[in-house]
Amino acid sequence: MEEQNKVVLHGMWLSPFAKRVELALKVKNIPFNYVEEDLKNKSELLLKYNPVHKKVPVLVHNGNPVCESLVIIEYIDETWKNGPKLLPEDPYKRAQVRFWSKFMQDQLFENSVVILKTEGEAQQKAVKDMYEKLCVLEKGMKEYFPDGKPEVDDNNIGVLDIIFGSAFGAYKAHHEVLGLNMLEADKFPVLNSWLMALVELQVMKEAAPPHEKVVQFLQFLRQSALSSTSAS
Amino acid sequence: MEEQNKVVLHGMWLSPFAKRVELALKVKNIPFNYVEEDLKNKSELLLKYNPVHKKVPVLVHNGNPVCESLVIIEYIDETWKNGPKLLPEDPYKRAQVRFWSKFMQDQLFENSVVILKTEGEAQQKAVKDMYEKLCVLEKGMKEYFPDGKPEVDDNNIGVLDIIFGSAFGAYKAHHEVLGLNMLEADKFPVLNSWLMALVELQVMKEAAPPHEKVVQFLQFLRQSALSSTSAS
Repeated sequence: MEEQNKVVLHGMWLSPFAKRVELALKVKNIPFNYVEEDLKNKSELLLKYNPVHKKVPVLVHNGNPVCESLVIIEYIDETWKNGPKLLPEDPYKRAQVRFWSKFMQDQLFENSVVILKTEGEAQQKAVKDMYEKLCVLEKGMKEYFPDGKPEVDDNNIGVLDIIFGSAFGAYKAHHEVLGLNMLEADKFPVLNSWLMALVELQVMKEAAPPHEKVVQFLQFLRQSALSSTSAS
Repeated sequence: MEEQNKVVLHGMWLSPFAKRVELALKVKNIPFNYVEEDLKNKSELLLKYNPVHKKVPVLVHNGNPVCESLVIIEYIDETWKNGPKLLPEDPYKRAQVRFWSKFMQDQLFENSVVILKTEGEAQQKAVKDMYEKLCVLEKGMKEYFPDGKPEVDDNNIGVLDIIFGSAFGAYKAHHEVLGLNMLEADKFPVLNSWLMALVELQVMKEAAPPHEKVVQFLQFLRQSALSSTSAS
């Protein structure tokens, strides 16, 4: 019987995409085994389960793999129907959640990587791009939240909370490495208060990787990228 | 009462993304008004309804806008629960459908545009990229379809049929303009037989734009792009 609901997550500790799935499983109280992947030496299982993209996260449920973090989250919500819902019930609200999930998926991640791996003009351009996209998100979330304010508590965590929290949860480490805080309260009051509420949640605290380890890894990524650029 | 279920689609006749939504509405037998947008002179309504991306398609249902074609299709399937289902009921099959929807969304469109707008080496590179992505899709669909064969009929049209049919329905026009058929039967037997079955469906025939008009527009796009490249 136990094997019938076997859930395995293949992830990588710093991946915000894998973190989304980890949070979704924890919010829904679904027991799972975790397999840490070395992305420079991917396991045969990862290549077997995700032959198309060869990326984490992969959720394996009863031997069946599901890939792509947003697809996995919907799968989790539709398969384990008891407990907290990750998506709202109302079709129009679901559409809004899916729209903003896709916006964050498509628009935020690439810029964050560029900001981390560049300096000077290239970095300034990426910061400006990111700022403009965050302005769009700030306005969108202000309109989306009831009364313009995020409602966050341990019993009411949804897909948008999970995606946004995974993307910016390590903001202090980014600040330490880059001397830059993208989500300052005076510029982005809604996003800032949302993030401050999210990082205080028990489930977010438990899932957060250690600050010092994140700082070291981001510094390593930044230095490697900058030295390879200056050498080329 | 009539106004209570008012459905308006803002589209552009050649957009495969707008075509997806048109097909979804027609498959579900949902009456709707269609607004053709001039993408060089977008209407105030389009800018109001989709301020984030300013793109078609937008579905407006009872005054509420929904944007992004895949989000709209899920909204349609969840709102009008009677009639044919666009997504399967089983959560694992839904995840597979969402995975391949995203694959087609992310991987096929950009290459098609490059192939249309370039020649020589740049075009050859895009053709090679497209070929490799279609190999992945061919293998994926062969595994996805029961017995490795597409099952297509007028009463059984799903999201993947809609996305694939919208992307490649005008393959004859592309062939005429480019002298190139990406989906030849000997290279892609599954995808080719799938497409041949789809273009014979009544709903696909009714939604297909006139061949000559597509040829003229593709030729215009190609010539404009090539002359601006050679002039730069």
